[in-house]
Amino acid sequence: MSKPIRVTIWNEGQQERNQPHIQAVYPTGIHQVIAEGIASEDFEIRTATFYDDNALGLPDDVLEATDVLFWWGHRLHKQVPDELVTRIQARILEGMGLVVLHSGHHSKIFSRMMGTSCNLSWREHPGGERERIWTVDPSHPIARGLPETFVVPKSEMYGEPFDIPQPDHLVFLSWYQGGEVFRSGCCYHRGRGRIFYFSPGHEAFPIYYMPHIRQVLANAARWCASPHDDGVRLEGRHRPEALEPIATQSE
Amino acid sequence: MSKPIRVTIWNEGQQERNQPHIQAVYPTGIHQVIAEGIASEDFEIRTATFYDDNALGLPDDVLEATDVLFWWGHRLHKQVPDELVTRIQARILEGMGLVVLHSGHHSKIFSRMMGTSCNLSWREHPGGERERIWTVDPSHPIARGLPETFVVPKSEMYGEPFDIPQPDHLVFLSWYQGGEVFRSGCCYHRGRGRIFYFSPGHEAFPIYYMPHIRQVLANAARWCASPHDDGVRLEGRHRPEALEPIATQSE
Amino acid sequence: MSKPIRVTIWNEGQQERNQPHIQAVYPTGIHQVIAEGIASEDFEIRTATFYDDNALGLPDDVLEATDVLFWWGHRLHKQVPDELVTRIQARILEGMGLVVLHSGHHSKIFSRMMGTSCNLSWREHPGGERERIWTVDPSHPIARGLPETFVVPKSEMYGEPFDIPQPDHLVFLSWYQGGEVFRSGCCYHRGRGRIFYFSPGHEAFPIYYMPHIRQVLANAARWCASPHDDGVRLEGRHRPEALEPIATQSE
Amino acid sequence: MSKPIRVTIWNEGQQERNQPHIQAVYPTGIHQVIAEGIASEDFEIRTATFYDDNALGLPDDVLEATDVLFWWGHRLHKQVPDELVTRIQARILEGMGLVVLHSGHHSKIFSRMMGTSCNLSWREHPGGERERIWTVDPSHPIARGLPETFVVPKSEMYGEPFDIPQPDHLVFLSWYQGGEVFRSGCCYHRGRGRIFYFSPGHEAFPIYYMPHIRQVLANAARWCASPHDDGVRLEGRHRPEALEPIATQSE
Repeated sequence: MSKPIRVTIWNEGQQERNQPHIQAVYPTGIHQVIAEGIASEDFEIRTATFYDDNALGLPDDVLEATDVLFWWGHRLHKQVPDELVTRIQARILEGMGLVVLHSGHHSKIFSRMMGTSCNLSWREHPGGERERIWTVDPSHPIARGLPETFVVPKSEMYGEPFDIPQPDHLVFLSWYQGGEVFRSGCCYHRGRGRIFYFSPGHEAFPIYYMPHIRQVLANAARWCASPHDDGVRLEGRHRPEALEPIATQSE
Repeated sequence: MSKPIRVTIWNEGQQERNQPHIQAVYPTGIHQVIAEGIASEDFEIRTATFYDDNALGLPDDVLEATDVLFWWGHRLHKQVPDELVTRIQARILEGMGLVVLHSGHHSKIFSRMMGTSCNLSWREHPGGERERIWTVDPSHPIARGLPETFVVPKSEMYGEPFDIPQPDHLVFLSWYQGGEVFRSGCCYHRGRGRIFYFSPGHEAFPIYYMPHIRQVLANAARWCASPHDDGVRLEGRHRPEALEPIATQSE
Repeated sequence: MSKPIRVTIWNEGQQERNQPHIQAVYPTGIHQVIAEGIASEDFEIRTATFYDDNALGLPDDVLEATDVLFWWGHRLHKQVPDELVTRIQARILEGMGLVVLHSGHHSKIFSRMMGTSCNLSWREHPGGERERIWTVDPSHPIARGLPETFVVPKSEMYGEPFDIPQPDHLVFLSWYQGGEVFRSGCCYHRGRGRIFYFSPGHEAFPIYYMPHIRQVLANAARWCASPHDDGVRLEGRHRPEALEPIATQSE
Repeated sequence: MSKPIRVTIWNEGQQERNQPHIQAVYPTGIHQVIAEGIASEDFEIRTATFYDDNALGLPDDVLEATDVLFWWGHRLHKQVPDELVTRIQARILEGMGLVVLHSGHHSKIFSRMMGTSCNLSWREHPGGERERIWTVDPSHPIARGLPETFVVPKSEMYGEPFDIPQPDHLVFLSWYQGGEVFRSGCCYHRGRGRIFYFSPGHEAFPIYYMPHIRQVLANAARWCASPHDDGVRLEGRHRPEALEPIATQSE
């Protein structure tokens, strides 16, 4: 049997602490609910939050022992140190996967990897609005076990245009009752790493308890894990000696 | 007649000052040689270097008045202030074009836009080695006026794997006498802006005097200029009111 | 001034002849309505239909004199001769543009160029349903002059998953009142040619009279026109003599 | 343990029959040499050739029982019936993988799937010429176990521009001693299926005996096999009933 995929679920964790109506939905924290939601024999899961002592729970040894990092953040994006973002980026380029969730579109690590603002339009309709997710690429690994379409009954709207590079694969598109559409499931390859952005998942709605959503996240963890560790590292490589003979020339 | 494209050619400019053998090749500076090389009625060209007083020659008003920015850097990448890089990035996302030249692969602005290390392999063969450039996409605007293949007789080798996101369009591929290949002409769309990376162009060889190379750079300036300024800015857009009626639901 | 773009608008034309309720909407034929809708000094427009005598109006000399071909078909796809499809494909690969409209998703020429079935889901809601189009890539040439979003009040639904290769650029996404989403404006590069698929435009609704739709079609004609005719033709090219010396080797 | 991948290796097989110098290299046929080369517990391999009685060895029941089809052809492309090509295309769109080898670039099935001519430049240097393959995307599944670069000492040259759609992933680039470069390992997604084109592998040189080449082919078989069979088939899907309520409107 192959080695388990080491998943680290990072969650800002502020709103579950400070806001009773969020705490009511995610009393153990979004990180715990996701951890329970994707639990599987082929995963070794740990969690970390902004409130952990050591480097927000992501010191070097944890990042080194992480195959796929989940990122949920919202209010504290700017307080995540640039130095940590740089370390995470380096790990992704070496092959660590990254799953960016919902309001993580504005996290430092996501815009660092994308090179764009990752801006979008948004609306918090009182009580939420209906989001319908379409599986645009049904044979993609992240679509395993998912139907053609499914509904998040109460969601926050995230709408186009979304300031991202064109995805390498577009897996999901979302429809909103209020009239918007959104590229809600986007895959990227960067360096040796893989990145998946998935927009459904607001803190005030129990979206991470939904079986289809959990299926997407488990699939994403498997897809984002690097398929192998062979071949060259993408470092600067000085090769002073030519591989093929360089004849003296006249032109 | 349409308005001229406002091109700003930024050059680090250090080696032309400090190293006689570089100065011998580019006595007026790489920026001047490029400016002369692409001069055309449809361009309004200015230049700037690291040694300019005000923000390395790129204060806000200059960036605001720039449609396409050329970037040549090599030794002083780390001394370019992050704050300037952030301003350039913002302008690109608003629609300014960026042409990144040769060793600019390791500039802060290029890796900022790519999200990757932009590492590659390289070799400075004494006296240079032969690079043969292939036009992979002959109908692309940047290939206008160019033959199927042409030779840079003395070049520095830049080789694969090149740690970049897959280009949106790949226009040129290079062959090196010493055995390497390289994606030497790569197009990207980021935000409302367009980016072109072009690798030929070492400081010690008179590559920017070659007519084919100048043709590529002039084409690149035209392609990178935003085709229009219509439509939405890619800012965060809060849209509290729904566009379509949101009915109360039961699920 | 540059030469005008020679546009040929091909329309099946059957339903305008045979069905009074279609004729009522497009009494002069969809081709005429589009021709009037995109009329501009920089276009030289001709039309052709299935009922034209010579090769459905597309004999060799017409194709040779066409820079961009529009294609509207619905009921007679299978009666378009394969030989004609092969000639059109050859012209596209040489550099002719192709704009495929609405039910042209199932035309022989579109699936020939895509390599896929181009299947989708569809619904003709009695009286039509509301389609809302989003400009996903606002700086794209085909988005010139268009707002962030606009509405087709009565439309036929075309929904995902749409069996197409991932577009090279995705310009528009559509939202439907009945719950679907669709990649409604898709760009492709094939050979030296450019292809744009645009789904809004049902025969029973006066969609091709709408100013925004006409703006899209005029933009598409300009974008699909080949930017130049330089460089190599993509024929089989036997090159018996090496460009660089091939030394005898031992390995 | 998961089910084995059912691989069918199709080979034209003419030159091994008719030409003694080809027979000397591949006495049992290219199909047999590949079958031996990729043999593995997770594959169930069968072979077929142009000379098989029933539909060139690819009747419906064989295609139905094939997860990944390898295709090697050269001289008899035009004699492959269109009807067979149509059946293979349908299977690919349903999820069968396709690995196209070397001169299969001009097979009917490859150009059917690409929509382009798949033309290239070529040279048969007497005695062959040196090809150096670069792994451009080292973390891709098809690069597993492969070095940064390796050499095919005697090869036929296939050169750019190659008339193909931009690959979804570019895994290998080739360098030729005679001066050309080539996108030699290209991945595509079409419908529910995956396609890999790999150019090294001439009939007159013992390339399919090389361990690195065999590693590529075995990796390709695994990558091209559909990751799962869940979700919607990409058929035309009439959905007369709306999923969301369509209100009567006034505009």
